[in-house]
Amino acid sequence: MTRNEQLHTEQGRFIAGVSEELTGFLEAQRELMATVSPDVDPLVTSISTLVTGGKRLRAQLCYWGWRGAGGAAGDPRIFTAGCALELFQAAALIHDDIIDRSDTRRGGPSVHRRFSQLHEASGWALDNDRFGHAAAILTGDLCLSFSEEAFTRIGSRAAAGTDARRIFNLMRAEVMAGQYLDILEEVAGPVRDSKGSVDRARSIIRYKSAKYSTEHPLGLGGALAGAPHDLLDAYSRFSLPLGEAFQMRDDVLGVFGDPETTGKPAGDDLREGKRTVLVGFALNMASNDQAAYLDAALGKPDLSEEEVGDIRRIMVDSGALDATESLIADLSNEAFAGLEQLPLEELPLTALRHLAEAAVSRAA
Amino acid sequence: MTRNEQLHTEQGRFIAGVSEELTGFLEAQRELMATVSPDVDPLVTSISTLVTGGKRLRAQLCYWGWRGAGGAAGDPRIFTAGCALELFQAAALIHDDIIDRSDTRRGGPSVHRRFSQLHEASGWALDNDRFGHAAAILTGDLCLSFSEEAFTRIGSRAAAGTDARRIFNLMRAEVMAGQYLDILEEVAGPVRDSKGSVDRARSIIRYKSAKYSTEHPLGLGGALAGAPHDLLDAYSRFSLPLGEAFQMRDDVLGVFGDPETTGKPAGDDLREGKRTVLVGFALNMASNDQAAYLDAALGKPDLSEEEVGDIRRIMVDSGALDATESLIADLSNEAFAGLEQLPLEELPLTALRHLAEAAVSRAA
Repeated sequence: MTRNEQLHTEQGRFIAGVSEELTGFLEAQRELMATVSPDVDPLVTSISTLVTGGKRLRAQLCYWGWRGAGGAAGDPRIFTAGCALELFQAAALIHDDIIDRSDTRRGGPSVHRRFSQLHEASGWALDNDRFGHAAAILTGDLCLSFSEEAFTRIGSRAAAGTDARRIFNLMRAEVMAGQYLDILEEVAGPVRDSKGSVDRARSIIRYKSAKYSTEHPLGLGGALAGAPHDLLDAYSRFSLPLGEAFQMRDDVLGVFGDPETTGKPAGDDLREGKRTVLVGFALNMASNDQAAYLDAALGKPDLSEEEVGDIRRIMVDSGALDATESLIADLSNEAFAGLEQLPLEELPLTALRHLAEAAVSRAA
Repeated sequence: MTRNEQLHTEQGRFIAGVSEELTGFLEAQRELMATVSPDVDPLVTSISTLVTGGKRLRAQLCYWGWRGAGGAAGDPRIFTAGCALELFQAAALIHDDIIDRSDTRRGGPSVHRRFSQLHEASGWALDNDRFGHAAAILTGDLCLSFSEEAFTRIGSRAAAGTDARRIFNLMRAEVMAGQYLDILEEVAGPVRDSKGSVDRARSIIRYKSAKYSTEHPLGLGGALAGAPHDLLDAYSRFSLPLGEAFQMRDDVLGVFGDPETTGKPAGDDLREGKRTVLVGFALNMASNDQAAYLDAALGKPDLSEEEVGDIRRIMVDSGALDATESLIADLSNEAFAGLEQLPLEELPLTALRHLAEAAVSRAA
């Protein structure tokens, strides 16, 4: 077997193992829920539908963080950790979709839409959207509890007082804080000093995305394998800039990406009023008139294709897109420099390089 | 010191200890959140405002379950357990108030209202209610994570595989399932066979209220002290009917209670469309015309005082109120019979008797 074959075999085994663990975990929960009432089955079903999709990026980072710190390939505890991370991500997505009013997720209806469709199809009374939102709040809460239940099953390596538990707690608190900063900037951004908008957008990215999606999963895997603090620090020097670059690429694709490739309508981030780094640069680099136009357009749910085109032009002409691309390049370079400093064996190092390359060079 | 003085001293010490632990826990979280951004402070503030109120019923049951099973009075682990239960209750209330559209909680604005007021006061852009809901979803998620973080701190007695952890997980899953059954019955009740409405309402009460508010907190305290399963079963024979009677009393007060004493407008449960045991009896015992009137009135947000009066009359004349009161009496008797069977020392037994008496004989 070549190095690459070995890598793909091992990674494939891990991903299959996580899926199997998720299936078993959720089937047991489904049985438990059936003792309450057959009526609650849709809660578990919507969670299991959601966790069958997704790239399992966080679980993979966790795995290679574990392997890099000397964890064994077939250890069931790392499968359980991957399962807990996937459940946490599902919980975050369920509530995120309510907050962002997103009707689709991973090619299907989002959870609140599933429940409002169930309401319609069943001919139930009162308001279907209100029922959908309420049911999705509860499903997200259930999924958040499941995530922690799975995490605790790892046992002593994830017990009270361990580094792994500390990182797990920090991950949850920071991503919720980051999501709050994100919705806050949508409403407070227009009345705050636009000079601070790039810094505020970078802070949102750091907490809502980079720490949550890359730094903490990698560190969690390392900590579960007993990594010393200097290895965890080295992991962060690689994964934090990687996560920031990844999210900024996502934000650029949200405005300039090809809808056929990204799977979401171009301009939706603008209609939602997301104040990204790209938007922050544009507000500062465009003329006063253009900045005022952009400020007023952000968050308009009925923004036309033409207005989206205008905004794109402002972002290009002002140099905001170039400034963002240049920052993405700097962060990528920082991440890859951090990667080369990692004191890892070749297999986990190669795996992390592949994951990093896929993260920063994607078109969707 | 008399028995009663001893009881009140010990209970007072516990309640003060839980409050102190909550304060310390939340202050540490506030400092952590400050490293993210000063902007996220309102999330922690709204949680700490919420947990300063309340009767601490669940924490007290947990405490006497612990003491009854031989746990020591000053053990810090039971304070931590009380803190975790209070945080869980706060998380449930935050999301419940979004679902029920309740604008007040414990004499102040509910969390989503706090955030929409912050939005208004700050002159932020876009929709203040939408911001309030989104911020409260995130605050509830944060609080749910805090609850589990506190619970894990108990250490080995609450570790993976213990009875205490099993009960904690069951409590969370069952209350979320019960809340779903509650919102489901509001919309599905009108099109389902009304013959099943009392059974469905009792199932909602069991999972949403009784298991969560009385059975699991008491069992959790017992399990943390190492109670054998036959003591946990005996706890359930007392606490489950107690919790059901408590919730049914609450439902009766929601329609017939004095708003000055209960602190909430009479009829609000009807406007929300809550299908309680009392409603279930009325649907089955009233004439067809009266049942149709009731069915149509439930969930009407603009139900007048006169219509509420009509519904009260239907409930009295049909015998539904009597049937409910009789069921409450049966459940109370069952609970007190279960209490007398408990193999406890006199102090915890007396404490549980006081809590039970307060629960079933209240007017608010």
